Amino acid sequence: MKICIPATSANLGPGFDCLGLAIALYNEVTIKPSRYQSISVKGEGEENAKLKSNNIFVSIFYEIYQEVTGKKDPFRFEFYNRIPFSRGLGSSSAVIVGAIASAYCMAGIKVSREAVLNKAIIYETHPDNIAPAVYGGFTTSIVENGKVKTLKKELSPSLRAVMVIPDRPMSTAHSRTLLPKSYLMKNVVYNLSRASLMSAAFFSENWDVLRAASKDCMHEHRRMRQLRELFDVREMALQNGALMSTLSGSGSSFFSLVKQENAAKVAQALKNRFESFRVEIFELDNGGFQILQS
Amino acid sequence: MKICIPATSANLGPGFDCLGLAIALYNEVTIKPSRYQSISVKGEGEENAKLKSNNIFVSIFYEIYQEVTGKKDPFRFEFYNRIPFSRGLGSSSAVIVGAIASAYCMAGIKVSREAVLNKAIIYETHPDNIAPAVYGGFTTSIVENGKVKTLKKELSPSLRAVMVIPDRPMSTAHSRTLLPKSYLMKNVVYNLSRASLMSAAFFSENWDVLRAASKDCMHEHRRMRQLRELFDVREMALQNGALMSTLSGSGSSFFSLVKQENAAKVAQALKNRFESFRVEIFELDNGGFQILQS
Repeated sequence: MKICIPATSANLGPGFDCLGLAIALYNEVTIKPSRYQSISVKGEGEENAKLKSNNIFVSIFYEIYQEVTGKKDPFRFEFYNRIPFSRGLGSSSAVIVGAIASAYCMAGIKVSREAVLNKAIIYETHPDNIAPAVYGGFTTSIVENGKVKTLKKELSPSLRAVMVIPDRPMSTAHSRTLLPKSYLMKNVVYNLSRASLMSAAFFSENWDVLRAASKDCMHEHRRMRQLRELFDVREMALQNGALMSTLSGSGSSFFSLVKQENAAKVAQALKNRFESFRVEIFELDNGGFQILQS
Repeated sequence: MKICIPATSANLGPGFDCLGLAIALYNEVTIKPSRYQSISVKGEGEENAKLKSNNIFVSIFYEIYQEVTGKKDPFRFEFYNRIPFSRGLGSSSAVIVGAIASAYCMAGIKVSREAVLNKAIIYETHPDNIAPAVYGGFTTSIVENGKVKTLKKELSPSLRAVMVIPDRPMSTAHSRTLLPKSYLMKNVVYNLSRASLMSAAFFSENWDVLRAASKDCMHEHRRMRQLRELFDVREMALQNGALMSTLSGSGSSFFSLVKQENAAKVAQALKNRFESFRVEIFELDNGGFQILQS
């Protein structure tokens, strides 16, 4: 079997730990029964020996597979990674979701996407990346009694993501230590009202409010100070017509939502200015992970 | 002219200071040119002499009317109030919105609903009641540079509000002093994610998530402790099939969203238990204030 899992961009400004969307940039993993367990890695991380000796995908895969079948059959895992690591593009969530969904599949168990999501939340405590990795589209999620409840809205094919992917990573764990433990009520209302309006905007496809609705006062500023060029990335993206432009997850990438007809202009402006950063235009994903049986 | 302005229920659990909806319970004000200024009050507040001597509607009306026309013409104001005062049903917002809209009308100036809303935010700093009083429906709002940005979703005619209106008022100002000045990050995420999911639920008419999405950890508990019966109101409404049940604004009323076919059952259960409280079933409003020219 082969599984494809999309990259995701979470937070989307004010939607701290709850809003996310899926990007048509996929990790692929091919899994075959084999006499011995083996791993091959191509693409992102192919030079990293740890991905062979201590592979999180493989660990989670076997946890689920053994839980379900009681066995530890050997498999060959062939990774083709397109999602950059530690750039706020949901590579960890793609690993978790992919490992869980493929383990059930190889065990011959048909499970719902909801079941995959509720398993994934055990490994990743926030639902904002795993929900769009599972369902695709724009997602708004809560965790209630350990279960994730998500509503999804399909993203129009006329939209594009312009991603700026810096040459330096940002660690989510370190990035979280930069944040305050508590927030003043006026700042809570600032984010809470904008996250709500952003959800309404995506569900009603009303893009005019996104620029105001995508502002955040909880996390972006503190995180972006680690890589000050990101302030200019945002300004330039918005000046060139992006509907919104927000830190992707905890960074270091920057996500801009752009109408198809403006994507090339926004991307070119960013490329010209930030020569050492990758700038790419992606379509959005509406399906979440996909399993292809061979 | 005559203007009708709907009651509103705000916060809706987690949507502190930003979410609201309009209820088909209207204050009516008839305004006529007259030789002398005069006021009559019927319905709610008719026994309150202050409503004649120091009427906020009339004060705001003349502020706007003079601003626009430069004159202070005498009018007769006939109030027929149906929205109870100080019960969390948006009576202040109805006064503000009604006064502004009718002042422009009597001055012969055609203004958009957006203009009325942006004037109203000057008098009421939170948009959660004034937005649905202006537009009707379910609204999610932010304030950006002093202007309100709102998205509205029409409410299905198959929905009803079951309102429990206690015999005691709660003051919004006092009620706000009960709240903490700051909130822990996990509590912020709790409310922020639920307010976002609730917006998505209303915009996609997906009622199944409302029970979990309507939970709050910022304000309801502290406010409801002032009138402990409200905890039982909530439990009983949910047990009898309410989709959600939340403190209305800062109280004292309690709002339950109910499918039409369950409304009588929910209302009857609440009436039987809380004999001293008013319990009423209302339709929802999708139009906001309405001006009828005579």
